[in-house]
Amino acid sequence: MSFIIEFEPLGIHLICEAPLTLLDAARQVGIHLRSECGGKGTCGKCRVRFISGKGNQIKSDEKILLGESQIKGGYRLACRTLVNRTAQIYLPPDSLLEKQIFQIEGKYAEFQPRPAVQVQAVELTPPSFSDLRSDLKRLSDTTRQFGLHEIQSGLGFIQHFGEQLRRSKWRVNLIHNQREWLYTFPPGDFHPLGLAVDVGSTKLACYLMNLEDGTTLAARGEINPQIVYGEDIMSRLSVILKNPDHAKELQKLVIHSINEAAQSMCQSLHRNIQEIADVCLVGNTAMHHFFLGLPSQPLAVSPFIPATNSSLYPRAADLGLQVMPNARVYCPPPIAGFVGSDHLAFLLAAGFDGNQHKRLGIDIGTNTEIALQHNQRIVSVSTASGPAFEGAHIRYGMRAAPGAIEHVSIDENGKPTCQVIGQSTAIGICGSGILDAIAELHRVGLLNSRGRLDKNHPAIKFDPEGKPFYELMPAGDSQPRITLTQHDIDQVLLAKGAIRAGIEILLDYLKINVKQIEEVIVAGAFGSYMNPEQAIQIGLLPDISIEKVHAVGNAAGAGARMMLVSTEMRHRALALADNIEYLELTIYPDFPLFFARGIQF
Amino acid sequence: MSFIIEFEPLGIHLICEAPLTLLDAARQVGIHLRSECGGKGTCGKCRVRFISGKGNQIKSDEKILLGESQIKGGYRLACRTLVNRTAQIYLPPDSLLEKQIFQIEGKYAEFQPRPAVQVQAVELTPPSFSDLRSDLKRLSDTTRQFGLHEIQSGLGFIQHFGEQLRRSKWRVNLIHNQREWLYTFPPGDFHPLGLAVDVGSTKLACYLMNLEDGTTLAARGEINPQIVYGEDIMSRLSVILKNPDHAKELQKLVIHSINEAAQSMCQSLHRNIQEIADVCLVGNTAMHHFFLGLPSQPLAVSPFIPATNSSLYPRAADLGLQVMPNARVYCPPPIAGFVGSDHLAFLLAAGFDGNQHKRLGIDIGTNTEIALQHNQRIVSVSTASGPAFEGAHIRYGMRAAPGAIEHVSIDENGKPTCQVIGQSTAIGICGSGILDAIAELHRVGLLNSRGRLDKNHPAIKFDPEGKPFYELMPAGDSQPRITLTQHDIDQVLLAKGAIRAGIEILLDYLKINVKQIEEVIVAGAFGSYMNPEQAIQIGLLPDISIEKVHAVGNAAGAGARMMLVSTEMRHRALALADNIEYLELTIYPDFPLFFARGIQF
Repeated sequence: MSFIIEFEPLGIHLICEAPLTLLDAARQVGIHLRSECGGKGTCGKCRVRFISGKGNQIKSDEKILLGESQIKGGYRLACRTLVNRTAQIYLPPDSLLEKQIFQIEGKYAEFQPRPAVQVQAVELTPPSFSDLRSDLKRLSDTTRQFGLHEIQSGLGFIQHFGEQLRRSKWRVNLIHNQREWLYTFPPGDFHPLGLAVDVGSTKLACYLMNLEDGTTLAARGEINPQIVYGEDIMSRLSVILKNPDHAKELQKLVIHSINEAAQSMCQSLHRNIQEIADVCLVGNTAMHHFFLGLPSQPLAVSPFIPATNSSLYPRAADLGLQVMPNARVYCPPPIAGFVGSDHLAFLLAAGFDGNQHKRLGIDIGTNTEIALQHNQRIVSVSTASGPAFEGAHIRYGMRAAPGAIEHVSIDENGKPTCQVIGQSTAIGICGSGILDAIAELHRVGLLNSRGRLDKNHPAIKFDPEGKPFYELMPAGDSQPRITLTQHDIDQVLLAKGAIRAGIEILLDYLKINVKQIEEVIVAGAFGSYMNPEQAIQIGLLPDISIEKVHAVGNAAGAGARMMLVSTEMRHRALALADNIEYLELTIYPDFPLFFARGIQF
Repeated sequence: MSFIIEFEPLGIHLICEAPLTLLDAARQVGIHLRSECGGKGTCGKCRVRFISGKGNQIKSDEKILLGESQIKGGYRLACRTLVNRTAQIYLPPDSLLEKQIFQIEGKYAEFQPRPAVQVQAVELTPPSFSDLRSDLKRLSDTTRQFGLHEIQSGLGFIQHFGEQLRRSKWRVNLIHNQREWLYTFPPGDFHPLGLAVDVGSTKLACYLMNLEDGTTLAARGEINPQIVYGEDIMSRLSVILKNPDHAKELQKLVIHSINEAAQSMCQSLHRNIQEIADVCLVGNTAMHHFFLGLPSQPLAVSPFIPATNSSLYPRAADLGLQVMPNARVYCPPPIAGFVGSDHLAFLLAAGFDGNQHKRLGIDIGTNTEIALQHNQRIVSVSTASGPAFEGAHIRYGMRAAPGAIEHVSIDENGKPTCQVIGQSTAIGICGSGILDAIAELHRVGLLNSRGRLDKNHPAIKFDPEGKPFYELMPAGDSQPRITLTQHDIDQVLLAKGAIRAGIEILLDYLKINVKQIEEVIVAGAFGSYMNPEQAIQIGLLPDISIEKVHAVGNAAGAGARMMLVSTEMRHRALALADNIEYLELTIYPDFPLFFARGIQF
């Protein structure tokens, strides 16, 4: 069974097949940890910390080097730590010699929180022989006074609340979601928590929220552990087509990760995971189906029909989430087989509302969804852009973090100049660096309009298998040789082609000229780092004035947070969902032509 | 851990602490199986069959004696079968030398079945690129045509129905309970099953019903396996008071038994347990709370408050019942801490409706509930009568089955004449025999008005510990000496006293003279076998004309079946529940006096 090691805050991951030390794992992905003793376990510089997962038993020599307080803090020496299962590793600045990164948060419109979940403090008369009402009757007689007579009691609540009533002497905080009672807490201040989750094919974004004021208390990004079953949706779906039993495993993996993220965020705030009273989860349709245990086989075969496109609000415990007993998970509706509730959340956060305003919305991810709003219509498409823009499938791809090449210029002789985040040694190249490099390679003639490297140019080199590549940075003392291969370029051009074809088809379908577009909203981590000029230059975006392009970061996560803390936003999203027309690209007339044109410069 | 061996159809059980052979177990409770070889395993006459549970591995000598076909039929030789866990054993007529018994079924009023669960056959248009509706939308668009637009879809249904749709080429039978979709079956004839359960402290009655026409397809009575935690409610409650963890165990035991009973009834009809689409369960309040996992500690302490007195309809799977996925269990409301939904079911089946008609209803069991209807009021009380009338706690007590003494007369010299069911050798005494014996002992002066045996009378003998008893039948070649001890008599008189006190207090409370009572309805197994004349003679019932007394057998089970197959009956029961006033006997003025008077003749 393969497993994943993820290095934070760099966002680089390695899929491993056999046990290895963390030092070796880091080397394999080009991360150079301080290691003055050369990995002999004597210098103590390669300190790392497990965020999740664990390594082999710590031995006495390592204990002596780290000292008691560091051991208590969860530190290990990377060179002495053998790992054989999935783990997320934090690399402290000292071990890397660099300052930490920041990550752009999804931006979203201002709105008033109006959470589904609310707290009602009550005090009941204790029972006696002259007042033999049952616990539930006693409770409902009292809550009726607060206008809460329509709130139902499920078995799970009835099983629990009577004990709390007696324990806290008939005074309690009652938690409800306006439909049913969820749980009781002792009297006193209680501020319920909420959990918003955006499940992407590659990344899982979790946000811990204060339900009452809508503030984000903590956020965690993790690799979607389902990645061991395939990097993109289609490969995971085909695993399930071959053996439907794997669906349960995919479900378990993602739920386990969400529990872990929620647990660790709660711990960091000294809160209990059972104080999470409401959850909102968005994701592409396959992730949505995997999470909910819905049959996903129909998503794998034409015409790609989802099980449902209604919103669902199942009990969290039924799915294995360890939040407040009886709490529910709000799952907004998916739109189509390949346009999920994450797209809906993106459009909600980006203010799409089906008005006259002509807007293009692009959420770039392993799957890219694009929506065009025009004349009170919203039409959405989905393209399999692949994970290239997230740095995956790119030899030296990484997130925009210290050590990433973020800008590249190439002179007329084909000689590169690279700008590295943190001005330290380079360990990889991030999305904006890749776009720069490709645009520059094309500009100086090293890349032709069909996207092939010029094999006759002296700046183009060849690997031992004879495959051409371009060298961005030569190998140095503490850095690998960083290159861009023909395969890397192909990945990016295929992704760009898919996205551009989607945009062009939408314009064609709604008969809009690109000049009429008033705003382009780009979401997704890549979109935040992308330079709009470059995006237009390589043809990812059509020729449009740069001021019209706005990056909004993880807008799907922002939309999930909005729906978590506001029932009004849930209603708005449902109305929006009803308004979205799905257009199937693959059967659109001349789709192959649009795609071929999209790939070219 | 103790375990129970129950012998059917005699209804005699033995609580065992250590492994023993079935032959020894039978002997201990006075059942003499044919055993010509004296238990050496050579005659092959003591054949028995396991209904549930199992014994030690069968060995070759036993195999030879039984032959292949009997082994396949599940037969064993009692003398060769060692048992160390709970089992229910069927004693074939040949092994007992007697014909089988019959059991009176609960009688109930005629009514039209109107089940909550219904079947709708549908055919859907398959999806295509020109019709990309999700599975659920496709379904609801079709079912709307049948007026079923208000039926909800829970996660469990959405997880399953799409696969069945595709497997049976978009034609299916949909099962719903008028509130939500439960499940889908392939097209064709489908007649859903229902399960009605009456959980008594001692016995569990399960009925498999045809939901559509309301007929009973099979019935099973079993010992309530919770009996290992105490024979009556209070002892089980005190076990939980000491250690709340035992509540889970009590819940598991009863659910396991219900599953086993349902499974075996379904098997006998070549049906699948998953075809059970609705369940209705009644029981006394403690049994109701144990089954539902509700906290029962408050039932153990004054003022004995139940968690709820609303009807509940939780998902069967949440409780561990193996019926149709997503099916629910209808649990009618308990009335008070010691007046359960079984009492409500009894009153429903017995036609109590709060009209002018003056009626007394008595459901005799380990706990006896009594209701008096008068002038549009129904007042109910509960008395802890103990299991004496069910034969438990009586040295030779047994159900009215072959081998039971059913009539006793005693001459002026104190010499008994006994009539045995099946005119075979006696193995015990059933309720009517006990009442006869006590009435006769009193009549001839062997028992004084305070219920003490006359120690100076020559017909009264003494056991080795010096305790007095009366011999009904001397020991014979193939029968034990059958006696009635002072302890047996005490048990019966305490039970009689508790019931009579309840009746008298109700008459006092509603200010009715006993002569005004128009009908007395007696339910419970004991009530069916009881001779009303004797009951009046010993003072269990007040002095009332015999024609007014009607036995209705297991009326609680009958009421459960009515509510299972008719939503109208559920509504009628809820209205009835609202109308029932609970009267707490223990705080009634002069209760001890009523009780003391009730015990006397």
